[in-house]
Amino acid sequence: MLFHVRMTVKLPTDMPAEQAARLKADEKELAQRLQREGTWRHLWRIAGLYANVSIFDVADAQALHDTLMQLPLYPYMDIEVMALCRHPSSIHDDDR
Amino acid sequence: MLFHVRMTVKLPTDMPAEQAARLKADEKELAQRLQREGTWRHLWRIAGLYANVSIFDVADAQALHDTLMQLPLYPYMDIEVMALCRHPSSIHDDDR
Amino acid sequence: MLFHVRMTVKLPTDMPAEQAARLKADEKELAQRLQREGTWRHLWRIAGLYANVSIFDVADAQALHDTLMQLPLYPYMDIEVMALCRHPSSIHDDDR
Amino acid sequence: MLFHVRMTVKLPTDMPAEQAARLKADEKELAQRLQREGTWRHLWRIAGLYANVSIFDVADAQALHDTLMQLPLYPYMDIEVMALCRHPSSIHDDDR
Amino acid sequence: MLFHVRMTVKLPTDMPAEQAARLKADEKELAQRLQREGTWRHLWRIAGLYANVSIFDVADAQALHDTLMQLPLYPYMDIEVMALCRHPSSIHDDDR
Amino acid sequence: MLFHVRMTVKLPTDMPAEQAARLKADEKELAQRLQREGTWRHLWRIAGLYANVSIFDVADAQALHDTLMQLPLYPYMDIEVMALCRHPSSIHDDDR
Amino acid sequence: MLFHVRMTVKLPTDMPAEQAARLKADEKELAQRLQREGTWRHLWRIAGLYANVSIFDVADAQALHDTLMQLPLYPYMDIEVMALCRHPSSIHDDDR
Amino acid sequence: MLFHVRMTVKLPTDMPAEQAARLKADEKELAQRLQREGTWRHLWRIAGLYANVSIFDVADAQALHDTLMQLPLYPYMDIEVMALCRHPSSIHDDDR
Amino acid sequence: MLFHVRMTVKLPTDMPAEQAARLKADEKELAQRLQREGTWRHLWRIAGLYANVSIFDVADAQALHDTLMQLPLYPYMDIEVMALCRHPSSIHDDDR
Amino acid sequence: MLFHVRMTVKLPTDMPAEQAARLKADEKELAQRLQREGTWRHLWRIAGLYANVSIFDVADAQALHDTLMQLPLYPYMDIEVMALCRHPSSIHDDDR
Repeated sequence: MLFHVRMTVKLPTDMPAEQAARLKADEKELAQRLQREGTWRHLWRIAGLYANVSIFDVADAQALHDTLMQLPLYPYMDIEVMALCRHPSSIHDDDR
Repeated sequence: MLFHVRMTVKLPTDMPAEQAARLKADEKELAQRLQREGTWRHLWRIAGLYANVSIFDVADAQALHDTLMQLPLYPYMDIEVMALCRHPSSIHDDDR
Repeated sequence: MLFHVRMTVKLPTDMPAEQAARLKADEKELAQRLQREGTWRHLWRIAGLYANVSIFDVADAQALHDTLMQLPLYPYMDIEVMALCRHPSSIHDDDR
Repeated sequence: MLFHVRMTVKLPTDMPAEQAARLKADEKELAQRLQREGTWRHLWRIAGLYANVSIFDVADAQALHDTLMQLPLYPYMDIEVMALCRHPSSIHDDDR
Repeated sequence: MLFHVRMTVKLPTDMPAEQAARLKADEKELAQRLQREGTWRHLWRIAGLYANVSIFDVADAQALHDTLMQLPLYPYMDIEVMALCRHPSSIHDDDR
Repeated sequence: MLFHVRMTVKLPTDMPAEQAARLKADEKELAQRLQREGTWRHLWRIAGLYANVSIFDVADAQALHDTLMQLPLYPYMDIEVMALCRHPSSIHDDDR
Repeated sequence: MLFHVRMTVKLPTDMPAEQAARLKADEKELAQRLQREGTWRHLWRIAGLYANVSIFDVADAQALHDTLMQLPLYPYMDIEVMALCRHPSSIHDDDR
Repeated sequence: MLFHVRMTVKLPTDMPAEQAARLKADEKELAQRLQREGTWRHLWRIAGLYANVSIFDVADAQALHDTLMQLPLYPYMDIEVMALCRHPSSIHDDDR
Repeated sequence: MLFHVRMTVKLPTDMPAEQAARLKADEKELAQRLQREGTWRHLWRIAGLYANVSIFDVADAQALHDTLMQLPLYPYMDIEVMALCRHPSSIHDDDR
Repeated sequence: MLFHVRMTVKLPTDMPAEQAARLKADEKELAQRLQREGTWRHLWRIAGLYANVSIFDVADAQALHDTLMQLPLYPYMDIEVMALCRHPSSIHDDDR
């Protein structure tokens, strides 16, 4: 099942640079692992913002929740979730 | 270049059924041609809504505009556009 | 899988009373069938509003979408959808 | 009487982990007691968010208020309340 | 139990004057009967607007809903409802 | 003259308990004095929120302002003000 | 007593030109009479919009309401009202 | 040229009283000088709020900007600006 | 003086094609004349929307208002206006 | 390709004056270099606000993003981005 997630990151401006760098590195490592596993199917930066649009491919809402909760930057994110389904005009059997 | 477009369709409830059917059929035909040509890269229905999330792959903002203006349902849509760019944590050389 | 849906109905004030009555009767019949089948698990009126809060129990987002699209009053509704999942503090094995 | 309550938790990101853990444990204990007593009838997590949708079954608005005020996480919550009533299309004598 | 209701009336500007006058007269008659019965405890005009703030004293949410549904102007109103309860600083045993 | 005031209190979560208790006690004392004097005519808690709806009966806008400015919790409040006037459907000569 | 009123006029685009002209002429005549009488103390156009900012000097909220209700364009206006009072830094004894 | 400015002041609740008093005194002194010079033509308090509505009479947008930037409380203000122009129904040659 | 204006055009979907075409042609002719005269300094389409961002160079707010009021599509536009001034970091003596 | 960017700067009111001055000086230096290079084509102050409207001329969304990320004040900015394209009524071959 596909979910559309918009994540907007708001790091406190007084967070020590080292802590921010470590959080981002951990986030990147997990994001890449989840991409390799097929869970995090698409990941795009929104131009000009510290924010992304992501498409997750998970078993259900619980799996989505558990995945997002693991993200090191989660406590600093605003999250918007929309459940997606196949569009009747799509020509791809598996629009991924 | 990629653009993220959310389209929400609001057909007048008193539009004759035949007119609505013809508009939707024309829209579908064009949407499928644009998908085949690679311009309309992804097309998902937002669950429960008469709305979609789409990813367009076009040369620039002008090409996006010209593409959307052709849509038969355009006069009945609310449109939101965001320019996307590559995310530094993406593992796909060409995240499409 | 559970979805939380808020439906707000906005019938045109100039809709003939007979048409409104027929739409509501059809809506009620379908709503009751879906409740009997277990798809529409909860249905509450929001006090003072022509609106409801509903919990749907469906296979996935596609099934939710197909269910809502059948509703006779759908063209006159504003719809808000949220995917739900089990809460870690719930004491019910199957919080329905 | 039923109330629909949405609770969104916003813990300060600099709260000591121990304090957060204690608050959450106390919250869980009380939430489970209130569920056993029948006051907190339903409790669902909103997928992807640190937020829940709850249905409370209480004598009146005062009882709802007193219940929410006891919650250890209350000072960190955004709360939205809607009074519910029976829906004329519900097939359950006691839609709980 | 007390409910705070804000009603904003939006009559179509092309409604025949006679129809508007009859609706308002019927609304007034019912509003005054409900005041005499004690259900509609307070009724104030918001200065400059075709809107009011009202306090209803009813058995529960169902009674509030049934009362509002009877109002002749209801189809032309935007309604906002808040459940009230006693304030700990109130000096009136029965703040009505 | 009547004013409808909604006050939403937002105490910092790190305010020392003693300071909060003193502020609330002072607020309560003043609120009760103003009620006894007839200035603060109604005071209701909004169910589930740390917020109230109040009706003030004052000479004019200046008197309202001076009254609100004295409140010990004022610096921690979000305030919304609406001027009220008599409703033509009210049956009370002095709807208070 | 002074009130700050913002009026935004939304005439239906299909209103006959003659009807619109007559409404505007009547509105102007009344606005000028109220200015001469001192009730409508200031009247400014918001640049680029069919909207104005006005300062009314009236006995109380009831007088404001009665004045606005007379305006021929009132049924086509969105209205926002704020009660004003003297500012402690004003140097004018009677800031009008 | 006239500008309509709404200023909402949000002093941090932990600002030392002495600093707040000095800022307010400096603000008042400048506000009164600008009123004497005719730049700050009107200044009203919005009833119940720590906010004002002001009318500035300046040469152009640059002059407005330079004036506002000097205000000692500017860093603590939310500012909304609208350019005004003469209203065709105004009876004052110089509606000030 | 420069003003930033965003215009969003909302033609009724049932406007006859001929009327829409004539309005657009008239709008274009005037827009081009105002550009040649230097009043309408910049004009950009917002990608994907029937909306533009424009920079006007006019004597004052009154001149802006009179200019916008002449636009044939004005009755179908939502308009947002912001006054601009020179930016201290601009390197252009006359940033046009 | 052109992008319209609105930047609103929110420096913490407790930032040391020296740090703020250095950030602003660095921002100015980079802004002027980007203007000289033609990337930052227009830069206007919004009157009365610590905010600007800018037009960037860049190769694509990625170039815009990389440019904005370099800005020393970026962590303190709210950013809104819109992609622009040529307007059919523009008379300038290269509306810059």
